[in-house]
Amino acid sequence: MRALPLPPGRLADQVRFLLEADRLKSVLRRTLISDGSRHENSAEHSWHVVLFALLLSEHARESVDVSRVIAMLVLHDLVEIDAGDTYVYDEAGLATKATRERAAADRLFGLLPPDQRKVLRGLWEEFDARESEDSRFANAVDRLAAVLLNYLGRGEVWRTHRVSAPQVRARNSAVGEAAPALGEVVRVVVDDSVARGWLAEDRACP
Amino acid sequence: MRALPLPPGRLADQVRFLLEADRLKSVLRRTLISDGSRHENSAEHSWHVVLFALLLSEHARESVDVSRVIAMLVLHDLVEIDAGDTYVYDEAGLATKATRERAAADRLFGLLPPDQRKVLRGLWEEFDARESEDSRFANAVDRLAAVLLNYLGRGEVWRTHRVSAPQVRARNSAVGEAAPALGEVVRVVVDDSVARGWLAEDRACP
Repeated sequence: MRALPLPPGRLADQVRFLLEADRLKSVLRRTLISDGSRHENSAEHSWHVVLFALLLSEHARESVDVSRVIAMLVLHDLVEIDAGDTYVYDEAGLATKATRERAAADRLFGLLPPDQRKVLRGLWEEFDARESEDSRFANAVDRLAAVLLNYLGRGEVWRTHRVSAPQVRARNSAVGEAAPALGEVVRVVVDDSVARGWLAEDRACP
Repeated sequence: MRALPLPPGRLADQVRFLLEADRLKSVLRRTLISDGSRHENSAEHSWHVVLFALLLSEHARESVDVSRVIAMLVLHDLVEIDAGDTYVYDEAGLATKATRERAAADRLFGLLPPDQRKVLRGLWEEFDARESEDSRFANAVDRLAAVLLNYLGRGEVWRTHRVSAPQVRARNSAVGEAAPALGEVVRVVVDDSVARGWLAEDRACP
């Protein structure tokens, strides 16, 4: 990253972090955008799920603080700049994900002034731990967005990666736990995908 | 857009709006992403400026409500789905921009349940009017992000479109009005771009 001609200090550190964050636009996910023309990147995905949170918070089981949910979603994938996107159905990748992402968080949030480093890293860890209501709802919309895009793409991504309906249901049971009405959307979409032959009930026995 | 197998009603309308919004990922801006490999799209740009607002609100001249600033920035480019991105230095495009964007807002926000339509459209109009402190700060980070990316790209986009330093200064004077320290970043970056020959003081006399 080119050094900016700014005097060293708090604002220069903030700007450097923001320009480093630009690289999230080059991290590709498995999902396709809605017209199927290309893979989605993690930056535009992050924008999309922030919009989900802005509109759908009324469906959370418990009342949530939308500002905190949105801040988590803005930050939730930043570590992928170093750690890459780990596909949710990739068991080998998932085994090393935590270690890779912790190292990424050390470096990336480490660019920030200490007070902001603490707050932002705390929000990222809270999202990842899925223990607070805010983080459970943030995770729910993150997952819902992927299910909906895969449905719009007629399940092509699921088939390419040999993902089965029981895997999608298991992965997304957390959606209904955090937001029952959104869990119902997942149920309807998964069942319809099975009915249309876009998603198999059992990948092991094709 | 494929119809989802959801019962008609509030949640179905919200989901339909969110899937329609996905198309912002295909609207290209003049700016390049930081590695220069491709044009930036308006969805990932929107994510980036939300991150700017999350980190930089302490630099606003007047105290701002970060949640409202962020909501404006999430929504600020949605109308480009129908109206396209209008380059800030394209005078012919700017002449018809307001009309095109109002029609787009009618259609897009019109997909939402009435209460959310009112709130979201109100935020978009507030951003566009640049009269409130929140909207002035939101516009400031929107502009700052473009200047920084153009600097990282060694001014290639400015040169391609024959944009001069006085034009960039005029367009971005609003940054310093809303946030003096961020205006100083613009000043330093523009002056350095001129010094390096990436931006001309006068395009009319090359």
